[in-house]
Parts: sequence; C-alpha cells; structure tokens
Amino acid sequence: MAAGLLVVLSGPSGVGKGTVCRRLLHLRPSLQLSRSLTTRHPRPGEEDGRDYDFTTLARFQKLISNDAFLEWAVVYGHYYGTLQKTVEESLARGTDLLLEIDIQGALQVRRRLAEAVLIFLAPPSMEALRTRIAGRGTEDALHINRRLQEAQHELAAYHLYDYLVVNDRVEDAAASISAIIEAEKCKVSRGVRPPGWGGDER
Amino acid sequence: MAAGLLVVLSGPSGVGKGTVCRRLLHLRPSLQLSRSLTTRHPRPGEEDGRDYDFTTLARFQKLISNDAFLEWAVVYGHYYGTLQKTVEESLARGTDLLLEIDIQGALQVRRRLAEAVLIFLAPPSMEALRTRIAGRGTEDALHINRRLQEAQHELAAYHLYDYLVVNDRVEDAAASISAIIEAEKCKVSRGVRPPGWGGDER
Repeated sequence: MAAGLLVVLSGPSGVGKGTVCRRLLHLRPSLQLSRSLTTRHPRPGEEDGRDYDFTTLARFQKLISNDAFLEWAVVYGHYYGTLQKTVEESLARGTDLLLEIDIQGALQVRRRLAEAVLIFLAPPSMEALRTRIAGRGTEDALHINRRLQEAQHELAAYHLYDYLVVNDRVEDAAASISAIIEAEKCKVSRGVRPPGWGGDER
Repeated sequence: MAAGLLVVLSGPSGVGKGTVCRRLLHLRPSLQLSRSLTTRHPRPGEEDGRDYDFTTLARFQKLISNDAFLEWAVVYGHYYGTLQKTVEESLARGTDLLLEIDIQGALQVRRRLAEAVLIFLAPPSMEALRTRIAGRGTEDALHINRRLQEAQHELAAYHLYDYLVVNDRVEDAAASISAIIEAEKCKVSRGVRPPGWGGDER
C-alpha cells in the first residue's frame, strides 16, 4: 500500500485558507483534515475529538519537551499543535492528510517531514487581501494596515514552498490543489512503480 | 509571461500512448502536439507541416551533425526527430508542448532540457500489454513474444522519469496527466510568484 500524502496548506492570514480547505475536502472526500491539539477551551458547539483535541497546558508543555510536535504555535496565549506520531500513523495507513496552518507552522513541518507537500495560497493582489481583511468588519483602519504589513512579510516566505496557488476564485484554487495532490501521487520519486513490477503488491 | 511546459509522454510500445495523447489534447486544448521532422515519404492523407515536416535524408543528416535535434531516432530505416530550436521557440512564446516519443527519445530530452516534464505511461499489467499487442492482429506469436520482451526491458526505464501514470482507463490516464500539467504550472521552482510580487508582470 502506498503511504498517504501530507498536504500543508498555508498562506498569509486573510487569504481564505479555510474556505479553500472546505471546498477541497468536498472535491476529494478521501482527504482527511488533520485535527489540532489545543490548550484553549472549547467554544459553544465545538466537540472534543471532532473540531480539536482539547488538553491542558501542563500536558501540552510536556509534549513540547518530549519533542512530540510536528509543529506547534502560540496564538493569543493559547497553544495549538499537531502531534508527529498521529500524522505518521495516518500516513502509514495510506490516509492523505490536510494540514491548514500558518507560515511558521508550515516551515516547521518542512524541517521535520521532508516528504510533506507545501502549498502556499496567495491573494490575487494586495488590494484583494485588504478588501478581505477589511470586509470582516471586525477591525479598524490601524489594525487593517498592521495586518496587511504582516501579510506582506508573510508573502515573502512563498519561495520556501513547493507550490503556489493563487486564490482568485475559490473553485479554481481548490481544483489546482486537487490536481497537485493527484500529480504528487504519480511521482516516481515517491516510489510509484509499474503494476506488477518487482514484487509490487498491486 | 510564464514559459510553456514541455511535456514528454513516453512508455513501452503498445501501451496506448497515441490514444491517451488524443484524449489529453481534448481535455487541454491549449496544449500543442509537437510535430516531428522525418525522412520518410508522406502516406496517403498525410500533409507536410500538419502531420509531419517531411525532409530529405541529406538535410536530416546535416541537422544531426549540427547538433540541432532535441531528440532523434531511426525507426525501420526512416529518421524521425524534434528540432531543439522549434521547441525552445514555442516554450518561450508560452506554449505548452506535448511530445509523444519512445523511451530512447525521452531520455535524450532529459539530458538536453532539464526542465522537461517526463511522464511514463505504464500498462496496468503485462497481461494487458500482451492483449493489446496481440489485439492489433498484425503480428504472429513469435513477434508478440519478442515485443513483450522488449516492453519488459523498456518498463525498467520508468525510474528515470518524473511521473508514472498507469493506462488502465484512457480517460483516467489523460486526467492524471492533465493534473500533472496543472501542478507543474504551480511549482515555485518554475519561478511562479504571488501576483504583484517584486516586479512580476502579471
């Protein structure tokens, strides 16, 4: 059985990663969204083991010192992370995993799991990103400008990724990512072989 | 403007390259089939400059000594080849080119044009290949066995390719190749950048 793919979808905040992910999971139902471990409390409607795995700060820090995370980050004082063992077990079972994380997280994955497929989701333009960030209606002009500056810095990381997909239309971006997954599964460097070739079990 | 892709589709004889190519060109009308130069005479219905570029043996040999070919081969006493300059001009204009050639030709392309995308089309099984070769009805048992042995040797070259696609159903094989082309166009290593990034003209 072929090992699963770890697909990391990342990009500047406000680029629309969540929407593209949902569309992609619809296009490829066999793809499984990786669940994060977090120290924050469940919000109303969130379920332990479905939306997140909720845990204590003490346990999270123990896991950090045991080097158990494929990637982890602190966001607004809460810890979020992905356990390396969980990911590796899924991949070994042949499951394709989707990880939707920020740029820092993606670069941690790059260092720890060379065979991960890193996809950078880019806005069609800085204007489009501004419109999206402002459109959330939750931030004032000062915050919008600061978030745009951060996004510009984050954009610079694109060259550390394998692929760049422009999120112009959600539908097209999801289709491109689906094509990337399809192509990666045909890569000879991943050990794909002609059926019946040298003891292959297919 | 982004440069075009050179997609080389190759595989053992009898695997169904021609059928998959036609289906692929239907799926991706912007993809252009590269035309070979040949010394053989036009068959009834073939047109110079459409099916092939027909030329003389003297001119072909002159081009060989000028090192003008991206790849060339002799098949049943006739010369066939692809001019490097023609291919490079098409790619520079942003045209994606499809080259359907045998394994020797594909490996010549690999050496001369590192950025070419090499796709190996494999039969779903050796039995399937035998059925296809026999099914042409043009060959006796001895020839069929010789061609099968050749195909087995040719199969061994798969690991020199970028991608392996199994021609189980023509439709699926063409769709996989189309996905590979889509994915290659998103590769950061090909110079893809976020729109508006650092003087990008998009």
